[in-house]
Amino acid sequence: MTACEKAAILVEALPYIKEFYGKTVVIKYGGSAMTDCSLKKAVMEDIVLMKYVGMHPVVVHGGGPDITRMLDRLGISTSFVNGLRVTDEATMEIVEMVLVGKINKEIVAGINDSGGSAVGLSGKDGKLIRAEPIPGKEVLGLVGRVRDVNTELIETLTERGYIPVISPVGIGDHGESYNINADHVAGAVASALKADKLVLLTDVPGILADKKDPTSRISRLRISEVDEYIDCGIIEGGMIPKVECCVDALKGGVGRTHIIDGRVPHAILLEVFTDEGIGSMVVKG
Amino acid sequence: MTACEKAAILVEALPYIKEFYGKTVVIKYGGSAMTDCSLKKAVMEDIVLMKYVGMHPVVVHGGGPDITRMLDRLGISTSFVNGLRVTDEATMEIVEMVLVGKINKEIVAGINDSGGSAVGLSGKDGKLIRAEPIPGKEVLGLVGRVRDVNTELIETLTERGYIPVISPVGIGDHGESYNINADHVAGAVASALKADKLVLLTDVPGILADKKDPTSRISRLRISEVDEYIDCGIIEGGMIPKVECCVDALKGGVGRTHIIDGRVPHAILLEVFTDEGIGSMVVKG
Amino acid sequence: MTACEKAAILVEALPYIKEFYGKTVVIKYGGSAMTDCSLKKAVMEDIVLMKYVGMHPVVVHGGGPDITRMLDRLGISTSFVNGLRVTDEATMEIVEMVLVGKINKEIVAGINDSGGSAVGLSGKDGKLIRAEPIPGKEVLGLVGRVRDVNTELIETLTERGYIPVISPVGIGDHGESYNINADHVAGAVASALKADKLVLLTDVPGILADKKDPTSRISRLRISEVDEYIDCGIIEGGMIPKVECCVDALKGGVGRTHIIDGRVPHAILLEVFTDEGIGSMVVKG
Amino acid sequence: MTACEKAAILVEALPYIKEFYGKTVVIKYGGSAMTDCSLKKAVMEDIVLMKYVGMHPVVVHGGGPDITRMLDRLGISTSFVNGLRVTDEATMEIVEMVLVGKINKEIVAGINDSGGSAVGLSGKDGKLIRAEPIPGKEVLGLVGRVRDVNTELIETLTERGYIPVISPVGIGDHGESYNINADHVAGAVASALKADKLVLLTDVPGILADKKDPTSRISRLRISEVDEYIDCGIIEGGMIPKVECCVDALKGGVGRTHIIDGRVPHAILLEVFTDEGIGSMVVKG
Amino acid sequence: MTACEKAAILVEALPYIKEFYGKTVVIKYGGSAMTDCSLKKAVMEDIVLMKYVGMHPVVVHGGGPDITRMLDRLGISTSFVNGLRVTDEATMEIVEMVLVGKINKEIVAGINDSGGSAVGLSGKDGKLIRAEPIPGKEVLGLVGRVRDVNTELIETLTERGYIPVISPVGIGDHGESYNINADHVAGAVASALKADKLVLLTDVPGILADKKDPTSRISRLRISEVDEYIDCGIIEGGMIPKVECCVDALKGGVGRTHIIDGRVPHAILLEVFTDEGIGSMVVKG
Amino acid sequence: MTACEKAAILVEALPYIKEFYGKTVVIKYGGSAMTDCSLKKAVMEDIVLMKYVGMHPVVVHGGGPDITRMLDRLGISTSFVNGLRVTDEATMEIVEMVLVGKINKEIVAGINDSGGSAVGLSGKDGKLIRAEPIPGKEVLGLVGRVRDVNTELIETLTERGYIPVISPVGIGDHGESYNINADHVAGAVASALKADKLVLLTDVPGILADKKDPTSRISRLRISEVDEYIDCGIIEGGMIPKVECCVDALKGGVGRTHIIDGRVPHAILLEVFTDEGIGSMVVKG
Repeated sequence: MTACEKAAILVEALPYIKEFYGKTVVIKYGGSAMTDCSLKKAVMEDIVLMKYVGMHPVVVHGGGPDITRMLDRLGISTSFVNGLRVTDEATMEIVEMVLVGKINKEIVAGINDSGGSAVGLSGKDGKLIRAEPIPGKEVLGLVGRVRDVNTELIETLTERGYIPVISPVGIGDHGESYNINADHVAGAVASALKADKLVLLTDVPGILADKKDPTSRISRLRISEVDEYIDCGIIEGGMIPKVECCVDALKGGVGRTHIIDGRVPHAILLEVFTDEGIGSMVVKG
Repeated sequence: MTACEKAAILVEALPYIKEFYGKTVVIKYGGSAMTDCSLKKAVMEDIVLMKYVGMHPVVVHGGGPDITRMLDRLGISTSFVNGLRVTDEATMEIVEMVLVGKINKEIVAGINDSGGSAVGLSGKDGKLIRAEPIPGKEVLGLVGRVRDVNTELIETLTERGYIPVISPVGIGDHGESYNINADHVAGAVASALKADKLVLLTDVPGILADKKDPTSRISRLRISEVDEYIDCGIIEGGMIPKVECCVDALKGGVGRTHIIDGRVPHAILLEVFTDEGIGSMVVKG
Repeated sequence: MTACEKAAILVEALPYIKEFYGKTVVIKYGGSAMTDCSLKKAVMEDIVLMKYVGMHPVVVHGGGPDITRMLDRLGISTSFVNGLRVTDEATMEIVEMVLVGKINKEIVAGINDSGGSAVGLSGKDGKLIRAEPIPGKEVLGLVGRVRDVNTELIETLTERGYIPVISPVGIGDHGESYNINADHVAGAVASALKADKLVLLTDVPGILADKKDPTSRISRLRISEVDEYIDCGIIEGGMIPKVECCVDALKGGVGRTHIIDGRVPHAILLEVFTDEGIGSMVVKG
Repeated sequence: MTACEKAAILVEALPYIKEFYGKTVVIKYGGSAMTDCSLKKAVMEDIVLMKYVGMHPVVVHGGGPDITRMLDRLGISTSFVNGLRVTDEATMEIVEMVLVGKINKEIVAGINDSGGSAVGLSGKDGKLIRAEPIPGKEVLGLVGRVRDVNTELIETLTERGYIPVISPVGIGDHGESYNINADHVAGAVASALKADKLVLLTDVPGILADKKDPTSRISRLRISEVDEYIDCGIIEGGMIPKVECCVDALKGGVGRTHIIDGRVPHAILLEVFTDEGIGSMVVKG
Repeated sequence: MTACEKAAILVEALPYIKEFYGKTVVIKYGGSAMTDCSLKKAVMEDIVLMKYVGMHPVVVHGGGPDITRMLDRLGISTSFVNGLRVTDEATMEIVEMVLVGKINKEIVAGINDSGGSAVGLSGKDGKLIRAEPIPGKEVLGLVGRVRDVNTELIETLTERGYIPVISPVGIGDHGESYNINADHVAGAVASALKADKLVLLTDVPGILADKKDPTSRISRLRISEVDEYIDCGIIEGGMIPKVECCVDALKGGVGRTHIIDGRVPHAILLEVFTDEGIGSMVVKG
Repeated sequence: MTACEKAAILVEALPYIKEFYGKTVVIKYGGSAMTDCSLKKAVMEDIVLMKYVGMHPVVVHGGGPDITRMLDRLGISTSFVNGLRVTDEATMEIVEMVLVGKINKEIVAGINDSGGSAVGLSGKDGKLIRAEPIPGKEVLGLVGRVRDVNTELIETLTERGYIPVISPVGIGDHGESYNINADHVAGAVASALKADKLVLLTDVPGILADKKDPTSRISRLRISEVDEYIDCGIIEGGMIPKVECCVDALKGGVGRTHIIDGRVPHAILLEVFTDEGIGSMVVKG
């Protein structure tokens, strides 16, 4: 490719750079994009680039296989209720340790390595994420939900040029830890920040009208259409909580929400900086 | 080109974006890049893109054929001394009017149109460019040189997100106007701002070791080599004052200076955002 | 005059200085005050004095004979519709060049020479004056009206101690220039700034109850009285748009508006710093 | 006088207003200017006018006859040593009460009444004036000298638009009060603030070459000339400490010092805003 | 007491320190606490401690016996109307002098001596307390009431770390002084500042259900109960205006009001930093 | 204890509160104070109290038995070289996870629970602690030393009211983790911050002149005495690196350093807020 062609591409990105200047984007980072080495590197680059062109990325990461692996190594077994892991104190201790002390730190180091400056945060830091048990699901133990987000700490770091990287661990009224679904944390953080965008990285190519046809992606759907899509089975399984998370965020004041395929290199950049996009965007209306 | 390839190119620009974040770049804008419509548009886009990725571009423009055309239409004839136009008051009035009231405003509108926010300045505004006659060249009339630059005004505008566009007109002790060489103004502004870069847009492909061979471009030369190049005729004619302007700017505290070919679309972007560059860089040492 | 008498006069001005401290005053500068050399100097001194005693003067200038003279020199003829000049592109180019590149710069130099620090602005700078064609008057070509004023740029300069001097040229949606009536620009700028005062310099001694009797000046009239004065012919001809401009400004939030005789030396100072005043003040009510 | 003549005078003051914009002037206020009602009003007006045209006046006042009168009413007698009043605790209590509770408050009310906003300060407030006994003069009791000035408090008030009015009372290491010569306090405050001017209001027409000839005023003298003038008796008696106070202030970093005749109405304004001045200026050199 | 016990006590104060961090507390200082030497010292320490642990104390002081003593020494007699002292100009002069020049200064020196930095203010300083005669009580002369408080001056000093100490002297429209009840001034200042607490130091152990039984203190009463307590004589005599002052302050936006026994050492600290408290708290409801 | 006695104690702390107002204190937290529940609570309270009375505590924590316990549970064995644990990558992963994800979070939760607001930081966050291998000790693997501290991040958090809690993990040039001695990290952080105090919590009663006599504590020693004490065996074993850490910090600009007995409840408070202190202070000289 000639230098001139490269210049042309930079210039093509200009309208998007302008559009998103100064905007806050919360990214739920998880799935393959977190386990595959080269995908991982591409995500870090996307995030740093967003910061440099004037956006304010905030990262919320999920758990991934490290937690299970560590529980296995320690011989801690888990019981399940309706497919959800019961999280007792012994389990929670390991979950928190892996999320905050390992996964979070790897992301922080990765962003730093790509030229950004990240600061990792647990929900305990500055009481960032106040949590509580999920009503009716007390049997799950220390699985919780977000009650309140301390946006002041995030904004302090963001304004000084740092990229906050948040572990989905909440703090209860008595200092106890809660394990919270990372999509839910990302949505709650985005709502609290009145973010312009919420981007959920997944391992599927967005919402497909026909599961067997990867080209049948629904690139844009409105809140009012969600129920119908669920009824007819187009949105199903693990996609349902993700779409609900988008709907909640939109109702909470977030501008736009995106469910994108983290297996595509630079998926975030593509979704943010090109018209076509590569995932499914859920919007108000 | 696929979306993925585009993303890859954006990511390739990241190291340059990081390197120049917060840096001040003074651009002398003139020649073909100012008369050719599509080149003009490309320059505007380059400048706006620089602003959006965190750089502080400051534009100094030259005169171009509009001045001569207007003098002709008005039947104002000019005498020359050693090839330099004698600028009497009647001529100066037209020169200033065309520079400040026409050319400057077209650039301002062009930058605005590309999504930036430009503010045009004459050397009179806020006593931006204090000027004086060139010693020994009083016969040239109101041709002057820079004595002093009010950087405070430039910085005020720059910090608020504006792109200053400066006409090469100076103000004398008694409020009189001076016509100043635009390269010289660009160099003086860059020195006063302690700019990181000075970029001179010309109509030649940088300094060529062999005038007949456009591939013989000298991509980098040091101050200490300049005299030798002049002696052996490699730097000659109109290139001499441009190189001298670079040398003065480097001595005045500017980081790097570039003489580039404004006839190449997006020449500025290429010089700033690629390693190879497309012109000749003059550096300290 | 003894030193003591001088001191007494300074002290007499104190109540006015106190009253207007920190207040914004938009001055439409035009007519004889712009063509007569000593009047010009007096206006510059008035403006600089206002700045030093804590007021924030903002100047909007008109065109004057320079435009017609330049059009004549260039042999550009003009057709008129209902007494208004049709402004085609060729004419607009010259109008803008003279307003921005000559008249504006003379005022800037004059203020600087009197000890202030002025910055000239066209409506294009920072998209200061967004304009559009006047509905129903498309036949006039590029004659426009103000749609929007970027007060942020004016305030940035004002806070840093500069005196903004604005040419009545607007910028359209596609970067095109519009020629706008200077009184109208002054009124729109005053409204957008929520200025405390709008002062229109004219070549008549305010509104006279009896045109033949210069002592019959109506020194104060209320919005509610305007229609009646127009009906009975006391306000007529060129005074009508000026009064309408005052009424619009008052409705737009300006505190007080003044139509004063620019042929009186230091007319602005007299109107602002003495009780009697020298023109006609239009007020709310 | 016509309105036009008034305007002309305001404009004449412009160069002085520009020159002193943002400058700090410490005024020692005492003598007839403090006892004569109309002189008092003129001083207040001068100070408020200075504030409004951008200067930062700081007032230090002296004692005057009120103290003696109150001591007399209370039957407190005083012994003298070498012409200086011995200040025991009973005397000091009354001195402080009259200075801070009566004279200071009258000046504050006077400035407020003229349109300024004054805040009275004793040397105790914020430990404004740290004082100590004068070495070798312990017999005088609580007569002290300045050791240190808390400029932060003065500057805080000045920046917020207040005019500080300071009583010449100092605070010792153990919280005890000291009676300090007001000229000395004014000089010390001016030095600490690195003031541009120190103005001492007196009851004589500056320094006269011939005491009998009021027209023989020496309008300007340099530090290096002071000793000679003392030797030959031109500077004598009560003028000696005043001149020494000026010399100390100049050595402490004050720009210029003025000894002026407070019996002339608006003496301060005349000295500051006219070339001729009305007193004797002591300068460096 | 061992060091460990001391540490324990500091830690016990932590919840109160947290609770009152950044809160404004207006203290009416008078009575025995102002005349008894060791009580005085304890009050100063309490105030300075409050400042250091992050509270913003503002002191309003009363008159005390110094005024009467000085009037006696000067042989100024006073007539009374309904038990209230008629304040003519001669009396007012002495009242102001003693309050501002003596009592205020002693408090300022005391606070400074305990390690704080106090600035004394009369109601005249910065027009802090605009006053007017009490309608229907013109016969009392210069006895006035608060019309308006300049909170900007208090806040300026408070933010910079100073402790304002206010004398209960007001300034009228014509610069005249008014003698105002100190409780009333404290209440008005607290209302204007929207203070969190108003503390009135008195010489009684709060409100007693049974005057003869000091253990019958009513530690908390609501506005709605006040009338009943007055009717049945529990609140009577000098306590009535104090309670009314509290009620007014509460209605004016103050959080809580306290009437406490200034004869108890460190009464303020005890009321603020312990649950039981030592006086009577009047609250909303 | 009566309320009055409590008040007295608070007042006794006033001089210390004043002395340390606005001062930065770095606390190395480790040993028994980190394992014993009630000691832990007392340390948290001490730190929060310091914050509330205006100090800026910064906590660096050590490792403790949790690391060894986790390594044991995972069956990771360790080889030793000269008594120092060889840290390979597998070990480092666990060390980091426990330090950052468990111990740090417990401290953060503890401080929050005592009413402060803590933010945990690893050396990776914002590249807080840039590290490198210890020259000559490469055999130890990922055991490192501090090269550079990003004080900007600590200060940003401190100014906003947060208490930084730092894990002794460093980040290398290639993003790799380093295990660093916590005393050394505390010393380096204190030096970089130019802290006023460095406090090392240990499990011994300071430096004892006679190891067998706990009353023989040397409460203060100077840098110049250290070598002698080492030579004669008074400073020996594990105390040597602690004292060297103090000496380095003092040379790096720290005001005072303290080695105190963390087994005494509220040891920090006692050392900071009482004259006697409870440990050994190492000072310059």
